[in-house]
Amino acid sequence: MNRIINDPDLLVEHMLQGVLVAHPELTQAKDNQRVVYNANLAQDGRVGIVTGGGSGHEPAFLGYVGPGLVDAVAVGEIFSSPTAKSFFDAFCIAERGAGIACLYGNYAGDNMNVKLAMKMAASKGLVVRTVVANDDVASAPPEDIAKRRGVAGEIFMWKIGGAAAAQGYDLDGVIRVAQKAVDQCRSIGVGLSPCTIPAVGKPNFQIPNGQMELGIGHHGEPGIEVVTTESAARMAERMLDYILADRDFTVDDSVVVLVSGLGATPVMELYIYYAEVERLLKERGLRVHRCYVGNYFTSLEMMGVTLSVLGLDAELASLIDQPCRSIGMTQTE
Amino acid sequence: MNRIINDPDLLVEHMLQGVLVAHPELTQAKDNQRVVYNANLAQDGRVGIVTGGGSGHEPAFLGYVGPGLVDAVAVGEIFSSPTAKSFFDAFCIAERGAGIACLYGNYAGDNMNVKLAMKMAASKGLVVRTVVANDDVASAPPEDIAKRRGVAGEIFMWKIGGAAAAQGYDLDGVIRVAQKAVDQCRSIGVGLSPCTIPAVGKPNFQIPNGQMELGIGHHGEPGIEVVTTESAARMAERMLDYILADRDFTVDDSVVVLVSGLGATPVMELYIYYAEVERLLKERGLRVHRCYVGNYFTSLEMMGVTLSVLGLDAELASLIDQPCRSIGMTQTE
Repeated sequence: MNRIINDPDLLVEHMLQGVLVAHPELTQAKDNQRVVYNANLAQDGRVGIVTGGGSGHEPAFLGYVGPGLVDAVAVGEIFSSPTAKSFFDAFCIAERGAGIACLYGNYAGDNMNVKLAMKMAASKGLVVRTVVANDDVASAPPEDIAKRRGVAGEIFMWKIGGAAAAQGYDLDGVIRVAQKAVDQCRSIGVGLSPCTIPAVGKPNFQIPNGQMELGIGHHGEPGIEVVTTESAARMAERMLDYILADRDFTVDDSVVVLVSGLGATPVMELYIYYAEVERLLKERGLRVHRCYVGNYFTSLEMMGVTLSVLGLDAELASLIDQPCRSIGMTQTE
Repeated sequence: MNRIINDPDLLVEHMLQGVLVAHPELTQAKDNQRVVYNANLAQDGRVGIVTGGGSGHEPAFLGYVGPGLVDAVAVGEIFSSPTAKSFFDAFCIAERGAGIACLYGNYAGDNMNVKLAMKMAASKGLVVRTVVANDDVASAPPEDIAKRRGVAGEIFMWKIGGAAAAQGYDLDGVIRVAQKAVDQCRSIGVGLSPCTIPAVGKPNFQIPNGQMELGIGHHGEPGIEVVTTESAARMAERMLDYILADRDFTVDDSVVVLVSGLGATPVMELYIYYAEVERLLKERGLRVHRCYVGNYFTSLEMMGVTLSVLGLDAELASLIDQPCRSIGMTQTE
């Protein structure tokens, strides 16, 4: 392991120092350094958008705090859930009189801590509702869809929910569209190399060189199959087959595609991969309304890529096109 | 080598397919696929901004084509110069009646091909002037400053030159401010792992695990020293020492800092590193006017980081703050 760090046990503290000094539009809760929020939040009666998760996925999660996106984020240790207290503090900060939409991913630790935080919030009279992303088709069969993990499709949930809140949707409305973004999204990843948590010092899983692990999770959770690394074209086809077998996207007008590198994949390769995805979608009669290609949701220095497809209706299309500004995503039109 | 590609000999073609389908605001010259330009260029009498360079540095170079930045880019093979014909074709496309500023980095192949392209342009009556970035302090001593390579500081040159052109500066004015951006910028990189050109199949240089190469070039050109990998704090201090010894930044009001990953460095680590840079600059009496932290100029999947510091005067400060929009950099204020 050869990395640019100071102390493996203080990675998150040191990262936050850099993020906060680089981005004065973000700030840290006074009494809880593990809550980062939009410094320009107005008491404008809008629904507050909160998320949270483990670190090591940058720019997720804190990189999606900003206008048109998330208002406050609970920051966990590397690959582990933020505390219930941090979720609760994020709720309190994001509350602007219209309730809180907590939009997070389906992991045991996050589920437990959000649940505890909601009890703390209820005792304070805060109204918090949740949407739990479960877009990873590889993590459980269709009959167990509620067991699936949330992966890069969470970004769609934040974008859609954040745009709705900015437009003045009430809490019911924000929850409805964020849930729709989850329901109409499917994702799958492929890993080409493992990653190493610096405090551990060695990879917590292995991918033999020349092989790829299809369906790998964002923390190296085992995938569906390990096969010899294929061409980008075959990789895209195999991944898209899983996604399209799981949901009928032809009922929608068009789709949004998110291709995210897992940390160490050259941007060149993400575009090579995207060219294949776009070609295959067109062959199958689907039109790409908008796409995102880059490092949007990573796993430290893992090599690999995730593919997320969101089925659009007119409402989601309008919301996905709204402007937003954050470290991870800035959209001007 | 385990990568997301189709054919190692067609990486650039396949990448361009993906880039063009993902970004309809970019287009390819009809008779030269290795020229990419802003599809919305108006015949508005502005100075045309052209750059070019080898591929493998994405989002550089084509990721900086867009409003407020570069108008047309000549695209080379992996780590090698575009042809003279591609530079010439880029000049022709970017010409809008006020001449062309060709803002590129100091490499033998680029120098030769730009010179040839300028002869072709002169015979067509086009006025082309150049600024050649040489911001890498590690690549030659101060007395041989003209021999230094251009690295991530090129982005400042494009940003400043592009903003000036957008504001209606004439060719003299654009060249003057772009040259000032180069003169007032210093950069240095550190490599923690090598990278592999897929068509070659193995790294063309080595960095032993646990060691780092200070002053490494964007293509693995040898650096100044290979030492045991240090903490982010010590790394930042060592790199900043080289930069500040080379130019007196205290004559300026403030500085702009660019921290770019080389491809495989987690974003978390870039922020850990940036926190140290900001602290050290403050200790030395310098104020950061603006910073950029991310993967702005990469070297395939190399692990490492580059640090660029630009000394500002009032004119550069105003130009760096102008809006721009591109794959690599979008600024709304």
